[in-house]
Amino acid sequence: MPQLRKDIVTSHWVIIANERLKRPSEFTVTPHTAGDFFCPFCPENESKTPAPIKEYLNDNNEWISRVIPNKYPVLKSERDPAFVKDPFYESMDGVGEHEIIIESRDHHFTYYTATPDDFARNYLVTAERFAALAEKKHLRYGLYFKNYKPDAGATLLHPHAQIIATPIVPKLIWEELVGAKDYHDTNGTCVFCRIMDEEKKRNERLVTENERFVAISPYASMSPYEIWILPRQHTAEFQSLTADDAHHLGMIVHDIFQRYKAVIGDAAFNAYLHTAPFRFPLTGFDRYFHWHIEIAPKTGILAGFELGSGFCINPHAPEECTRMLKEVRQ
Amino acid sequence: MPQLRKDIVTSHWVIIANERLKRPSEFTVTPHTAGDFFCPFCPENESKTPAPIKEYLNDNNEWISRVIPNKYPVLKSERDPAFVKDPFYESMDGVGEHEIIIESRDHHFTYYTATPDDFARNYLVTAERFAALAEKKHLRYGLYFKNYKPDAGATLLHPHAQIIATPIVPKLIWEELVGAKDYHDTNGTCVFCRIMDEEKKRNERLVTENERFVAISPYASMSPYEIWILPRQHTAEFQSLTADDAHHLGMIVHDIFQRYKAVIGDAAFNAYLHTAPFRFPLTGFDRYFHWHIEIAPKTGILAGFELGSGFCINPHAPEECTRMLKEVRQ
Repeated sequence: MPQLRKDIVTSHWVIIANERLKRPSEFTVTPHTAGDFFCPFCPENESKTPAPIKEYLNDNNEWISRVIPNKYPVLKSERDPAFVKDPFYESMDGVGEHEIIIESRDHHFTYYTATPDDFARNYLVTAERFAALAEKKHLRYGLYFKNYKPDAGATLLHPHAQIIATPIVPKLIWEELVGAKDYHDTNGTCVFCRIMDEEKKRNERLVTENERFVAISPYASMSPYEIWILPRQHTAEFQSLTADDAHHLGMIVHDIFQRYKAVIGDAAFNAYLHTAPFRFPLTGFDRYFHWHIEIAPKTGILAGFELGSGFCINPHAPEECTRMLKEVRQ
Repeated sequence: MPQLRKDIVTSHWVIIANERLKRPSEFTVTPHTAGDFFCPFCPENESKTPAPIKEYLNDNNEWISRVIPNKYPVLKSERDPAFVKDPFYESMDGVGEHEIIIESRDHHFTYYTATPDDFARNYLVTAERFAALAEKKHLRYGLYFKNYKPDAGATLLHPHAQIIATPIVPKLIWEELVGAKDYHDTNGTCVFCRIMDEEKKRNERLVTENERFVAISPYASMSPYEIWILPRQHTAEFQSLTADDAHHLGMIVHDIFQRYKAVIGDAAFNAYLHTAPFRFPLTGFDRYFHWHIEIAPKTGILAGFELGSGFCINPHAPEECTRMLKEVRQ
């Protein structure tokens, strides 16, 4: 029997429908191929990108992570976004920042081959960029994300993540903030802290954990093998990440990708960070929000039903995905 | 300069970012291929599907549209969905209906080759199914949708659309209902009627129209070439469609797909219907909702930024898409 499940934070409903896995498909999928392509992110080609915002060097004085402005930005770096005057429709200038974090010198580096230190370094770089972007008074939010493989929306192979900083707080973040505030108002506690407690007690969807972080398959997972990584200690803002936090975050993310590799191979995925809006703690509301990273392997396409209704259909229950990921010997 | 635009019904924000079109891609996309596949939807193979719910016959007594239960349903046809008792998480049984409308006997029929009558017949079939599903007291909503080509989530080639009827009102429908009610409470008029007036006056995003229907590119289009089709006359429920309405709806949908064919070729697309929840008029609230069909050609992948933020990035402004579609000579 399929099941409808409600996300306790956002109140989104998901349909868990295992039967759907049995559906036949008439089509053969040919993997996308990367041809001969000049890579602007490789060493020696630094002059082909805009000037770097920040570079992290190794002992040989070579960069190992490099932050640059996106040459094709979604939002443009200017001050004072203006609301456009119109008697009916509402709009504003597309002002913001769009940065790329080149995560390695190695064109063929992936999250499946990366070391814990590689992850730790890039998360620290990201936290530093968040701290800097949060200083810009016209920005309200920063979304860090990573697309791996063309099926997940990547257009370049060289390993990179992105930050898009926006002049308004995105809808899905608002929904989490509102849900977390409602939960806190009613229950006097952070809903994310409560989820971690509950999942540790039930031990059905807890994938792995270490001294500082917990990784779970969320109860209302929108797609198979979705994982949330949460800091054990209640923290609203990602930019408060210390070097020691980054070390433990690198360890758990490395652990997760080794498990993914064993169970679903070198799969395409999207990952993103949900953190508090900039200057949010100034409002005193940081009691109820708790940053976390969401990783979603790309296993299907959002089609007419999902796009038209907002329901996700997940053909693989998170308890079952957790079981398979936990069986992997490290 | 990119622009942020707010959808006047749902308050979703969209980023219109034309610059993104210039982005290079390292990957070559190979089209999906359909191999030798036994088609359960073709004539002669009727015994391979569940027994039909309804068949529409031609003068030779052959079916030309055929409604069947989905063999791999997302939700299962049973009465009395039960809420599952759990002190923390909320869920309910996945009860509902999942029907397939086989739209033609011809395996290779597409919306780009269909006649206005083909569309009209299938919309009438759909309206009839909605009227029947609305009678089932445990169902709250029916979502009609169509996925064309594997890039848009189709797994079978033979032309078909689907209806999934759910025991709760989906999130995106709630957002439209709430937005439409708020607009009506403030302005005393239906927001969809007002959009049609406004778009006719501005004549920037009105793609085509006939005696009964209007087709526009919405102001905050989530993707290139998105089109909404609205009945001129304020109507909340799709199932009130008459044969004459269906005739005019078939004409305008045919017109749109001929324009698509000329501008973007035989493109993959998703289409879905937004209509009032079942028994909605009984609440007296049908003053503010207005059914419409949304068509979204598949031109990109929702990636980490969209999935993590809820923002859509649309690289092609709707005014420009409208201009190209209007230039097509009929």
